[in-house]
Amino acid sequence: MKIAIINGPNLNLVGRREPSIYGSADLAGYLQSLTAAYSDIEFSVFQSNSEGAIIDELQQRGYSADGIILNAGGYTHTSVAIADAVRAIPAPVVEVHISNIQAREAYRHTSLLTGACRGIIAGFGLDGYRLAVEALLHRDDA
Amino acid sequence: MKIAIINGPNLNLVGRREPSIYGSADLAGYLQSLTAAYSDIEFSVFQSNSEGAIIDELQQRGYSADGIILNAGGYTHTSVAIADAVRAIPAPVVEVHISNIQAREAYRHTSLLTGACRGIIAGFGLDGYRLAVEALLHRDDA
Amino acid sequence: MKIAIINGPNLNLVGRREPSIYGSADLAGYLQSLTAAYSDIEFSVFQSNSEGAIIDELQQRGYSADGIILNAGGYTHTSVAIADAVRAIPAPVVEVHISNIQAREAYRHTSLLTGACRGIIAGFGLDGYRLAVEALLHRDDA
Amino acid sequence: MKIAIINGPNLNLVGRREPSIYGSADLAGYLQSLTAAYSDIEFSVFQSNSEGAIIDELQQRGYSADGIILNAGGYTHTSVAIADAVRAIPAPVVEVHISNIQAREAYRHTSLLTGACRGIIAGFGLDGYRLAVEALLHRDDA
Amino acid sequence: MKIAIINGPNLNLVGRREPSIYGSADLAGYLQSLTAAYSDIEFSVFQSNSEGAIIDELQQRGYSADGIILNAGGYTHTSVAIADAVRAIPAPVVEVHISNIQAREAYRHTSLLTGACRGIIAGFGLDGYRLAVEALLHRDDA
Amino acid sequence: MKIAIINGPNLNLVGRREPSIYGSADLAGYLQSLTAAYSDIEFSVFQSNSEGAIIDELQQRGYSADGIILNAGGYTHTSVAIADAVRAIPAPVVEVHISNIQAREAYRHTSLLTGACRGIIAGFGLDGYRLAVEALLHRDDA
Amino acid sequence: MKIAIINGPNLNLVGRREPSIYGSADLAGYLQSLTAAYSDIEFSVFQSNSEGAIIDELQQRGYSADGIILNAGGYTHTSVAIADAVRAIPAPVVEVHISNIQAREAYRHTSLLTGACRGIIAGFGLDGYRLAVEALLHRDDA
Amino acid sequence: MKIAIINGPNLNLVGRREPSIYGSADLAGYLQSLTAAYSDIEFSVFQSNSEGAIIDELQQRGYSADGIILNAGGYTHTSVAIADAVRAIPAPVVEVHISNIQAREAYRHTSLLTGACRGIIAGFGLDGYRLAVEALLHRDDA
Amino acid sequence: MKIAIINGPNLNLVGRREPSIYGSADLAGYLQSLTAAYSDIEFSVFQSNSEGAIIDELQQRGYSADGIILNAGGYTHTSVAIADAVRAIPAPVVEVHISNIQAREAYRHTSLLTGACRGIIAGFGLDGYRLAVEALLHRDDA
Amino acid sequence: MKIAIINGPNLNLVGRREPSIYGSADLAGYLQSLTAAYSDIEFSVFQSNSEGAIIDELQQRGYSADGIILNAGGYTHTSVAIADAVRAIPAPVVEVHISNIQAREAYRHTSLLTGACRGIIAGFGLDGYRLAVEALLHRDDA
Amino acid sequence: MKIAIINGPNLNLVGRREPSIYGSADLAGYLQSLTAAYSDIEFSVFQSNSEGAIIDELQQRGYSADGIILNAGGYTHTSVAIADAVRAIPAPVVEVHISNIQAREAYRHTSLLTGACRGIIAGFGLDGYRLAVEALLHRDDA
Amino acid sequence: MKIAIINGPNLNLVGRREPSIYGSADLAGYLQSLTAAYSDIEFSVFQSNSEGAIIDELQQRGYSADGIILNAGGYTHTSVAIADAVRAIPAPVVEVHISNIQAREAYRHTSLLTGACRGIIAGFGLDGYRLAVEALLHRDDA
Repeated sequence: MKIAIINGPNLNLVGRREPSIYGSADLAGYLQSLTAAYSDIEFSVFQSNSEGAIIDELQQRGYSADGIILNAGGYTHTSVAIADAVRAIPAPVVEVHISNIQAREAYRHTSLLTGACRGIIAGFGLDGYRLAVEALLHRDDA
Repeated sequence: MKIAIINGPNLNLVGRREPSIYGSADLAGYLQSLTAAYSDIEFSVFQSNSEGAIIDELQQRGYSADGIILNAGGYTHTSVAIADAVRAIPAPVVEVHISNIQAREAYRHTSLLTGACRGIIAGFGLDGYRLAVEALLHRDDA
Repeated sequence: MKIAIINGPNLNLVGRREPSIYGSADLAGYLQSLTAAYSDIEFSVFQSNSEGAIIDELQQRGYSADGIILNAGGYTHTSVAIADAVRAIPAPVVEVHISNIQAREAYRHTSLLTGACRGIIAGFGLDGYRLAVEALLHRDDA
Repeated sequence: MKIAIINGPNLNLVGRREPSIYGSADLAGYLQSLTAAYSDIEFSVFQSNSEGAIIDELQQRGYSADGIILNAGGYTHTSVAIADAVRAIPAPVVEVHISNIQAREAYRHTSLLTGACRGIIAGFGLDGYRLAVEALLHRDDA
Repeated sequence: MKIAIINGPNLNLVGRREPSIYGSADLAGYLQSLTAAYSDIEFSVFQSNSEGAIIDELQQRGYSADGIILNAGGYTHTSVAIADAVRAIPAPVVEVHISNIQAREAYRHTSLLTGACRGIIAGFGLDGYRLAVEALLHRDDA
Repeated sequence: MKIAIINGPNLNLVGRREPSIYGSADLAGYLQSLTAAYSDIEFSVFQSNSEGAIIDELQQRGYSADGIILNAGGYTHTSVAIADAVRAIPAPVVEVHISNIQAREAYRHTSLLTGACRGIIAGFGLDGYRLAVEALLHRDDA
Repeated sequence: MKIAIINGPNLNLVGRREPSIYGSADLAGYLQSLTAAYSDIEFSVFQSNSEGAIIDELQQRGYSADGIILNAGGYTHTSVAIADAVRAIPAPVVEVHISNIQAREAYRHTSLLTGACRGIIAGFGLDGYRLAVEALLHRDDA
Repeated sequence: MKIAIINGPNLNLVGRREPSIYGSADLAGYLQSLTAAYSDIEFSVFQSNSEGAIIDELQQRGYSADGIILNAGGYTHTSVAIADAVRAIPAPVVEVHISNIQAREAYRHTSLLTGACRGIIAGFGLDGYRLAVEALLHRDDA
Repeated sequence: MKIAIINGPNLNLVGRREPSIYGSADLAGYLQSLTAAYSDIEFSVFQSNSEGAIIDELQQRGYSADGIILNAGGYTHTSVAIADAVRAIPAPVVEVHISNIQAREAYRHTSLLTGACRGIIAGFGLDGYRLAVEALLHRDDA
Repeated sequence: MKIAIINGPNLNLVGRREPSIYGSADLAGYLQSLTAAYSDIEFSVFQSNSEGAIIDELQQRGYSADGIILNAGGYTHTSVAIADAVRAIPAPVVEVHISNIQAREAYRHTSLLTGACRGIIAGFGLDGYRLAVEALLHRDDA
Repeated sequence: MKIAIINGPNLNLVGRREPSIYGSADLAGYLQSLTAAYSDIEFSVFQSNSEGAIIDELQQRGYSADGIILNAGGYTHTSVAIADAVRAIPAPVVEVHISNIQAREAYRHTSLLTGACRGIIAGFGLDGYRLAVEALLHRDDA
Repeated sequence: MKIAIINGPNLNLVGRREPSIYGSADLAGYLQSLTAAYSDIEFSVFQSNSEGAIIDELQQRGYSADGIILNAGGYTHTSVAIADAVRAIPAPVVEVHISNIQAREAYRHTSLLTGACRGIIAGFGLDGYRLAVEALLHRDDA
């Protein structure tokens, strides 16, 4: 099974960016442990600050991966183009957010992506990535 | 460890209600299997169509349970009083929805509860309850 | 044929509540006469001030009645949960209002229920209940 | 007793226009049967695609008819001038719609006319015209 | 003289719920002292988390009490049905809030009840209940 | 103890201005009686039609008075500058309105001041000033 | 000098339509007296309930009249097409309303026409037409 | 007969302020000629940049003048307090604007005053003041 | 092949109406040349200022023409009834505008018609009619 | 003559992406045929998923091309920066969309680009590109 | 060179008002030092809590000063009349705010003044006044 | 001291792009002179049309520079992701705009960035960059 993890802008700073919101753990390190723990799954991990690069990656992985975990960061609230890419590809996409975006500023309450994704997991810190893997593993049951 | 599962209006009809949205599996049956699978956890399962009864249950469980899984159904979008109850109690609350509410009618896009909860899991069918249990089990790591 | 009449909050006060809006006739007495006039139909009549009790009644009658007449009073404008119950059950539901809600306060202009019901009859006083019975009797013709 | 039936734009196409919404029965034929069935009532039936012509007809019938049945079609949502005409005349006006306009596009949810009419009947197909006649017959009881 | 005090959802938790907002004094204890201090007045005190039960109580007290003090908690911002009950009964109703709801979240700025009540007292902590009693005592002077 | 009473535009006309809304009692006379009745308190009474003069008075009294009673009249709904003055001074400010502003025109439903004040008392006629004095006397208890 | 007076829907009913708003004087009779009083001016007077006919008249008079007085009735609030006609013709157009439309329903507060006209005169009853003639007579001075 | 003319902020600059909008004629000079031309009327002319001073003047003239002509300049769009003053006094008030405020910036399209005044005259340059005098002279006819 | 060209209000003035927006070429003359250039197509050309007449023409041509080119002028932004007519008929309709309506006033940015039409062509001056013919000729390819 | 065709995000997937909306024809292949058919014109064809790269291309082509055909995909609804680029360059830009964006989701109804472009062509499938070439060829005539 | 500094309501309290927002430095003292440091410039410094007095000062300085520095405090967000005064005078006006108004309450995000001013400087504490002087000194270069 | 200057989309065209708005001076040349004039400061100058590249640069400079001057061009109004980057880094960021964005189109009135920046300087042409350097030099004083 293949799962692609795609992270958006400023997620490379998690661990040293506003720790009261995002925690002080390093995301890259966390993902290394996480992917190691699921040895049967072939993971790819990608991060970019560029909306276009995120779309490129979605298009490239979207026809071969069995599932995609997408944390689009600030683009979550503004990008019709990423939502279009999610709709365009056959792979199921799970939206993840580290923080509970509904408990933050009003402009973070609207996600343009959720409606195009299979589902959303938000507010559980880095553990949300593990939950998303779990969601993809069991996705045939629902 | 104690986990309370609280379901709101019309969730007693899941399985025979609009199966294209909610699936044809029986929720009560599913939860019996789920809670049996986590033998170390003491579960309580509650369903009511009444907003007041849901608040009563949140107040009663909120001081003794280690975590609460809440699917408030249609009250999700209209109940300030349930959100107040979630804020009033010490137990962490995970919001669950069977369907992806962002992919449905516009009035389902706003949840008054999410900002008061620890996080949200939506769109993964009945499996969302399992993911919520997982989220509560690991909630100290984030 | 079975028809269930379900009335919501404050409709037990019709006759002594704001008579310039709701008239001075007693609703319970009117319904007694009305149901007596249609001797071939088996009626049930229910009133509650509780949103949850209205949903309970809709669920209970919704699988056996041939039609439901629903005047949800103030819940008309605020209850997603009642609308969900209407959508969940197989019986056709006719929405009735004694007054012309569009000629009153702005917050009464929006009904969350109408879109889930078969149709709406509003503004004809207590006679609206008779028209709703007529609508259910002929509902196969349209 | 005199009742005027006034139909607005595109209602002359009912029967061959979007049958999934408006049904496949011919409105003109239906009204012929309906008016024949109430032999004590003197009916007039009018249809026009023109807002001005509908106002002309309302003004002409509004001082002699005992009641008016108005289905203003698309003008329902945009015409202050027709609402003004309804308010200007002494005859009571019953608003009818074949489809349940609240279950359709958002711009059909607002009627500028309802507040000026005695009441509204919507969603019961062509049978709505019969219900409107019934409503006018009993209008002194409410 | 008879005064009914009606408290809504989560007000049974005042004293141990978010003390920075609601204070650490126990509401039930406070009301016992308050009602004892006005020995000429016959008080009833009621609390429920259920919207329907609050309406039931308003209907029951509204024809016999000389005044009602209502703190509807979270239902303040969402309940047309409670506002309808306030309008339906003859007894004057004084709306009370412990906190200054205008200094809190935006969705607490709108009260559906105030327009139906005689007046509002908010922001003075538990002392607001005493002020409401004072307001009812002098209500003939204004 | 020192209490400053500050009244805004058109409140000098109370008694001869729209008596159906504001009553026919004279505000100046009422305040004379009221302040005489609390002989332990040193009152100042001020009225102006000018927004700037009200701010001047708030600034002058705000560092010496133990409490301020403010009825800013029409400026309630439009003045950020008065709200800023209330926030700038140490004295607690109680907002008073003679009428129930929520039961009047929509533009009177929003107060820019309430969020900056300690609390609000509205709808009790001139008696609201007495209630505000009571609120300030007991303000240490809450 | 030539002045065209163009009246829109329902203005033919002034005198017998809602006299508390529009007065009980007959508009046609009033205009006959008014135009007789200005013997040097060549008047045309036109009324129609049809938006298209009003545009036709504006186009026909707009290249020969020295000024146009337009009371578009209910079309004032909904007709982009009439506003376009006013902009398309060289003759100056004065907008007149018998009632003070800002003191009525909210949907009458917006005029799509005023921005295209030279100016507006509203709230002075039938005398508004005389004032409009005066405005056109002096229009070179401003 | 007594008429008070009250001009608001920046109207003392008419003639040298944005002449493309307000014209190059001097307002003070114009009003001198205008008031001289109506020798039977006793005029007062007042200008202030202060909202409070305008309210003071309205209160002072409002009980003795037979009519008031009010051009409140920029306060037109923001002053509830001036509108309250207009409503408080018995004298009829005619609102005047030199420019066509509906043809300018969007924030000038809303007048808080018009609903409180007898009527509005806008867009006719300085001649609007003469039309307002005419309106007051004939105000008994409508 | 049959194509119907239907033009709405004020389009008969193109050439002498606001030439900076609509150009100085005569529309009627242009259409004569255009239709002559496509000798294989049978054209009908229609213009009316009346919304009802445009609907009549759409209904009449809509069952026999192979395509319709519709420039509804000002009705574009206000007519639900024309949009309903477009949806009711089988012929494909191409919406044309001479000017770029998105570069003009905000109320011209919303077209009620586009969603009901096959497509839109706007901003290319009179040449837009030729492009619409081209679009209809090739419409089977897409 | 030189024409630049610039396509935005996800347009590289046309042909295998949501064929019910975008058709099953391959865009790249279609454009090869199209550009071959106009042998006198020198075409450049560009596609990118990156907003910045689209702006780079607009800047590079905007000073040398005689016209630009722009289908900005999802950026159409969110990019002020692309609209600024269109305004900054001298070449005329024609906006093209394959689908009728007004007949789709509400967030696709607003284009930030159209007001900056010469015109728009939408809803004609891939044939829209040919129509855009035609529009640029004749652009001097309008 | 002459520069006028005009400060609005509550700015006389800077230094002892909400120091976490406005700092603890005294504005009057700061301005004395600042104006002393630019010995070639003739400064005037003015503060008032009155909107009218600020307009008076703008009118008086606006024809003789070479530049004006305006911090209108709370009137920034509500005063059309001050914006009109800024537009009416020839002197360039620089808007200054001590705090970053965009990082504060939502009602402080809108400035009615900025569009009428030459530019805005906000968020730099008292140093913003020095930057404004610098901006006026170099204003011919841009 | 180190200052990074970061310019966004289309700012490379300043000097030849819409000179009535942005002036005719070349931005790159201006910045060369400006940075040369402050010989003690180590400047970096960066421009990109790509949102992602601007975020990359902010992240790279944000931990080493003493201050950043950011003119994000069109991304100012749409980019949550750039605002997140500004919040994520320790260096203070000053927002600069060449034009007065509040005096332009409505969609330019909202900046998503200002709330995250230290302050804003807008409307002073290229001189705004010098003022921003001055603001950063003195930033410890406020």
